[in-house]
Amino acid sequence: MGTGFLDAFAQEYKQLLDSELRLLVERLDAPSIIKESMIYSLEAGGKRIRPLLLFATLDAFGIDPKNGLPAAAAIEMIHTYSLIHDDLPSMDNDDLRRGKPTNHKVFGDAVAILAGDALLTYSFEVISTLPNEFASADTKLKLVIEMARAAGTEGMVGGQVADMEGEGKKLSLEELDYIHIHKTGKLLKFCVVAGAIMAEASQSQLDHLSAFAHHLGLAFQIQDDILDLTGNQQVIGKPVGSDTANDKSTYPQLLSLEGARAALSNQINQAKEFLKKTGLNTNLLREITDLVASRDH
Amino acid sequence: MGTGFLDAFAQEYKQLLDSELRLLVERLDAPSIIKESMIYSLEAGGKRIRPLLLFATLDAFGIDPKNGLPAAAAIEMIHTYSLIHDDLPSMDNDDLRRGKPTNHKVFGDAVAILAGDALLTYSFEVISTLPNEFASADTKLKLVIEMARAAGTEGMVGGQVADMEGEGKKLSLEELDYIHIHKTGKLLKFCVVAGAIMAEASQSQLDHLSAFAHHLGLAFQIQDDILDLTGNQQVIGKPVGSDTANDKSTYPQLLSLEGARAALSNQINQAKEFLKKTGLNTNLLREITDLVASRDH
Repeated sequence: MGTGFLDAFAQEYKQLLDSELRLLVERLDAPSIIKESMIYSLEAGGKRIRPLLLFATLDAFGIDPKNGLPAAAAIEMIHTYSLIHDDLPSMDNDDLRRGKPTNHKVFGDAVAILAGDALLTYSFEVISTLPNEFASADTKLKLVIEMARAAGTEGMVGGQVADMEGEGKKLSLEELDYIHIHKTGKLLKFCVVAGAIMAEASQSQLDHLSAFAHHLGLAFQIQDDILDLTGNQQVIGKPVGSDTANDKSTYPQLLSLEGARAALSNQINQAKEFLKKTGLNTNLLREITDLVASRDH
Repeated sequence: MGTGFLDAFAQEYKQLLDSELRLLVERLDAPSIIKESMIYSLEAGGKRIRPLLLFATLDAFGIDPKNGLPAAAAIEMIHTYSLIHDDLPSMDNDDLRRGKPTNHKVFGDAVAILAGDALLTYSFEVISTLPNEFASADTKLKLVIEMARAAGTEGMVGGQVADMEGEGKKLSLEELDYIHIHKTGKLLKFCVVAGAIMAEASQSQLDHLSAFAHHLGLAFQIQDDILDLTGNQQVIGKPVGSDTANDKSTYPQLLSLEGARAALSNQINQAKEFLKKTGLNTNLLREITDLVASRDH
């Protein structure tokens, strides 16, 4: 698969991101319990696919990916807040995430709700105060606007609501797409768009990267559903077949496993087509795309 | 008391704000249940003291207060999200607010959490997309930064955490001040600061208005505590003495009722001193200050 370069890149940048996240929270003048709760979930880690997409997009424009660290931290704060709130007893009621007790199991529901609120709010402070040498006022304002849209009712929150409303129902392919495009797709897309905005990309580059990220997001979700059916429980970190057990609609259910694999391959191909159209050196973004298609967790 | 002008002003602007809030949510392309839940709590109304402070500050600079409508809507969204989350069973567990069932009693805990998240996120979209004729890119960026600080762990969320941690404990006056300066004071201050930023105020005007709002915020909270002891249950909308029943520290408890009244009067006087120093026509802000000192709910 030849992701040697990506592996090394990901390794280095995950560490830089972890430090950035910790520094950003530690510097806050606030009651210690809320900072501990924020850091606890930020450090639960995961694949950090969102920050990687931002770094790789900057790299495609020949910009030092390190310039993307605070913006990537802001995005990871939004992703983390959404996980904390999703895990709450009144939402998915999950006790474990990536093998660790969920935030509310450690800090209680009230602090978990507030830690989510705090991370969401702080993400906007962080992205609106990027150093001027990384982003002009106009650029920062664009980032704020696009991040709010990606995370809000027309994005991630709307997808989460649709997902909840769809539970226990047999959804159409269109409805399933709506959920995933909004619940995970819009924020994934924002990572790429944020890099393009920081690089002051042309409108056509922005459109092509945006289309790339759209297809990548769908591929990511289809592979998630396939792994839920066929994955190794130890590797994916949750029981195989939990979607079926939770009465969730999935791509294999609607399309059959074969159909879902074909749809995955179709999304990956379209994603790569749009990458080519940018005319940029998108090696890292292509490697991330291959990784999404073939990942085992 | 001579608040005839303020009354008429408040009446007109409350209506304009209500329309603005409804329009802003209605235009969203999102599942209807989340929009209903957002509108339900936005329309629960209340005194709209925060928007009024913004409008009155713009008026002091000779700017049409109507220019402040979207920014005021953003602030009211943040205030409303905080009420929805505070009322949740794992937080204050309130079934009623201003005589109406709380958001989670009507829509369920999950939608209530998401409606809060949605309002918080949307507030940043609204403030970062103010029409260019009301605010330049630099101005909008400043508004985003200050709003995030006022609402986050160094502001409202931090105050809420400190308030929760203080329950059932006997607090010092310093601790009680910390809670109120953060939990309600920072967002109240932001309303005035937002007006000053939109008006491109000088640094000294900004400092004086900021100090004014700091004292007004403390006055507001001291009067809240006094009303909890001495108010009319029908007028204040909750049982008299509920702070004592809920084991909350209050100013009258720490300072005696007489002492709290003296502290209120002291804060009001300081607030008015700073207003004078601005050299602006601050009639409306002064009337709001008088209203805070003498309000019965």
